[in-house]
Amino acid sequence: MPMLENNAQLLHETLRRYVQREAWDRLDDLVKKTRDEELAGVMSVLDLELQADLWRRLPTAARQAHVICLLESPFGQTVLNPLPAQAVATVLREMAPDDMADILADLEPALIDAVLPFLEKSDEVEDLMRYGEDTAGGIMLPEFLALEADSTIEEALGQIRRSDDLEMIYYTYVVDGHGHLVGVLSLRRLVKAAPSTRVRDVMETDVVSVHTHQDQEQVARLVARYGFLSVPVVDEGNHLLGIVTVDDVLEVLQEEATEDMLKMAGAGQTLAETQGVRDNVRIRFPWLLASCGGGVIGAWVMSVYALTLEAHQFLAFFLPVILGMSGNVGTQAATVTVRALAMGQIRHYDGKWNAVRKEMVIGITLGVMYGVIVGLVATCFEDGPQHAVVIGLSVTAGMIVASSVGASIPVVLHRINIDPAIATGPFVTTSVDVLGIWAYFSIAGLLMGWMY
Amino acid sequence: MPMLENNAQLLHETLRRYVQREAWDRLDDLVKKTRDEELAGVMSVLDLELQADLWRRLPTAARQAHVICLLESPFGQTVLNPLPAQAVATVLREMAPDDMADILADLEPALIDAVLPFLEKSDEVEDLMRYGEDTAGGIMLPEFLALEADSTIEEALGQIRRSDDLEMIYYTYVVDGHGHLVGVLSLRRLVKAAPSTRVRDVMETDVVSVHTHQDQEQVARLVARYGFLSVPVVDEGNHLLGIVTVDDVLEVLQEEATEDMLKMAGAGQTLAETQGVRDNVRIRFPWLLASCGGGVIGAWVMSVYALTLEAHQFLAFFLPVILGMSGNVGTQAATVTVRALAMGQIRHYDGKWNAVRKEMVIGITLGVMYGVIVGLVATCFEDGPQHAVVIGLSVTAGMIVASSVGASIPVVLHRINIDPAIATGPFVTTSVDVLGIWAYFSIAGLLMGWMY
Repeated sequence: MPMLENNAQLLHETLRRYVQREAWDRLDDLVKKTRDEELAGVMSVLDLELQADLWRRLPTAARQAHVICLLESPFGQTVLNPLPAQAVATVLREMAPDDMADILADLEPALIDAVLPFLEKSDEVEDLMRYGEDTAGGIMLPEFLALEADSTIEEALGQIRRSDDLEMIYYTYVVDGHGHLVGVLSLRRLVKAAPSTRVRDVMETDVVSVHTHQDQEQVARLVARYGFLSVPVVDEGNHLLGIVTVDDVLEVLQEEATEDMLKMAGAGQTLAETQGVRDNVRIRFPWLLASCGGGVIGAWVMSVYALTLEAHQFLAFFLPVILGMSGNVGTQAATVTVRALAMGQIRHYDGKWNAVRKEMVIGITLGVMYGVIVGLVATCFEDGPQHAVVIGLSVTAGMIVASSVGASIPVVLHRINIDPAIATGPFVTTSVDVLGIWAYFSIAGLLMGWMY
Repeated sequence: MPMLENNAQLLHETLRRYVQREAWDRLDDLVKKTRDEELAGVMSVLDLELQADLWRRLPTAARQAHVICLLESPFGQTVLNPLPAQAVATVLREMAPDDMADILADLEPALIDAVLPFLEKSDEVEDLMRYGEDTAGGIMLPEFLALEADSTIEEALGQIRRSDDLEMIYYTYVVDGHGHLVGVLSLRRLVKAAPSTRVRDVMETDVVSVHTHQDQEQVARLVARYGFLSVPVVDEGNHLLGIVTVDDVLEVLQEEATEDMLKMAGAGQTLAETQGVRDNVRIRFPWLLASCGGGVIGAWVMSVYALTLEAHQFLAFFLPVILGMSGNVGTQAATVTVRALAMGQIRHYDGKWNAVRKEMVIGITLGVMYGVIVGLVATCFEDGPQHAVVIGLSVTAGMIVASSVGASIPVVLHRINIDPAIATGPFVTTSVDVLGIWAYFSIAGLLMGWMY
């Protein structure tokens, strides 16, 4: 297994060679022997057409279904949309209901209507499709094993032996006669209990659950914090409706981390979106427009101070240092704040303003330090010491403003229920640029007038 | 449970109030009734001294151990270092061996030597301490249930019932007479098999394992990709030495995502490091020094072109747009590349250069688009159309260079086994700034000389 990377490399090259040579028999043979997870890993770096060709050669509907679930959207739409409804249903039937609902929801509306009658549990799937894709309801499995509180361990074990093809029964949840969630019992504890004991007497009653409408990220953090293997999903009346399992949680946490990183740079939300050049251009263009607009405003501010700039040309030399230092310290403040918010480490209203205050103090400290350093460096340039004071002060002012803005924007966005990551990057750099230029020339204007 | 956030808020305020009023009895009562996970969540936003005070009031060594594991380092060192060896051992004994080894390794060397004799399985713990903290060996549990391939299902179930306090027995791994890993059997399958069957006949033989020295991030991605609940750890001779469980994997993936985000901004590696102002200043200072140095070089480059700048003052106005646009597009390219590398989506040598080529094409496209836009805007400023050509071309050139540099630096760092995230941010912004300034004035110098 330490050879994983090399295996993937080898598999990748071999697949490509067979396709180029049109050695279909060998290709089918290789595909048959390869695990779906490895195949999907290699497929994810191929172009969509080749992906679809390989997918069509998978020998069973079950493997086709599995590979669709492993690859990110829009792979599912691409391969399923052109197929007749019955063929689509054959593949979908092999999926867990939560995946089925997700994939189905992305297909063309006419195809969805045509496919639904072919599915056995179409009601269940339609129910799932009604929940938001990013909620507990959207990622839960509606099929699960619920034990009756009053049955015996022996009856419970019998129930488990009879149950088929349940994705995960490592915990079993316990309900009363009305379907209300009343307890939880790990399979381990169940196996170890005496056969005649009642479930009610060995179950744990202090059970943590989530609501159908709760955001998937909150659910994932909860499962991660407690180290659960699954968490039960209930409605307002505490009726058990499904379970969210740890493998879905792993996926959610990775997706959310990727989303935050990409959003902070204004580069989309998923890595799958970043496969093609065209999509990338479409996604990045508007964020760059924000920074372009900011830059143009900056140019206008500078043109207002054209006379100052003409008299003191050295001011232009140090503009990149001032903007660069402010930009970087602003990004540091924004990144720490966004991640702390996402990890639930800044949760309270107090905590939020504490975080901003802390970043301001850091900004003041680093600002004074670098103000002195850049000021000293500036004395080496021909324009003499009085200019160094202007430059040093501007670095200090710029960095203080940048830290405060960098920490405040995510907090404000979070407060008004906008994802802090979405606009932090472009907002921060643009505001910092404009404010930096304005501060620089204001300080220069003031001090120059005063010193001469 | 949808009330989680509010509960935490309430708990936080109540704890603070009791501490301020010195209402120790009430505090102890509240602590007794609160889950460790919730308590740790609230403690993580308090200052270290108050954290330690609360920790000391926890009623049992087991809870003290659990809370240390839930809070990030350096909490463990802070509360344990001042205690006598025997008291430290009492707490450590309550931890799983992998956590015990991690916490112990962070204590003062003299204390480690003093504590080890008090621990029952000190050999095992010393073994674990020998593996790197970030390897499969470092995060594995050395206590696990291994079934003999030749035993019957009935014998295996008996073995499980007798086994105590094993962290996770949802999968059971199967070994031959020499301790070699030969198969895996889920507890579910075991429960459902006929009692007289041999383990060998129902186990799966195609078992994915990892080596002790493999990096924890690779292990975590593997578990995530396959959706496993645990993965066995073996040595070079395929002897089963331990298991890595999904809860550790969840933690690793979250830590690594945080690390990548903070590293990219030059703001440390863990959120725990960012609690105090002093630590933040110490961590961020050197990264800002890089950007400061780059800015000073930029100032020097500009001073070389002082005559051009004097003749064409408008060049200074547009410097922030050019640097801002280049910086943003460079960060986009770097972010996408760093995350794709981390998620294992760019794995092959070919793939890496494809990624760089793709970013260059994106850079060219966006560069040309924004070159035209900024050029057109520039015509509105008084200096006339020929200057707009210089500015437009500089935007285009800057954005192309920035995309290429932004994608190349992570790939090069990855190639020479340096974490791509560590220097991407500061490296990218600094190189892009210097290259941008140089390109701008070169183009201006060339075209101005040629146009007049």
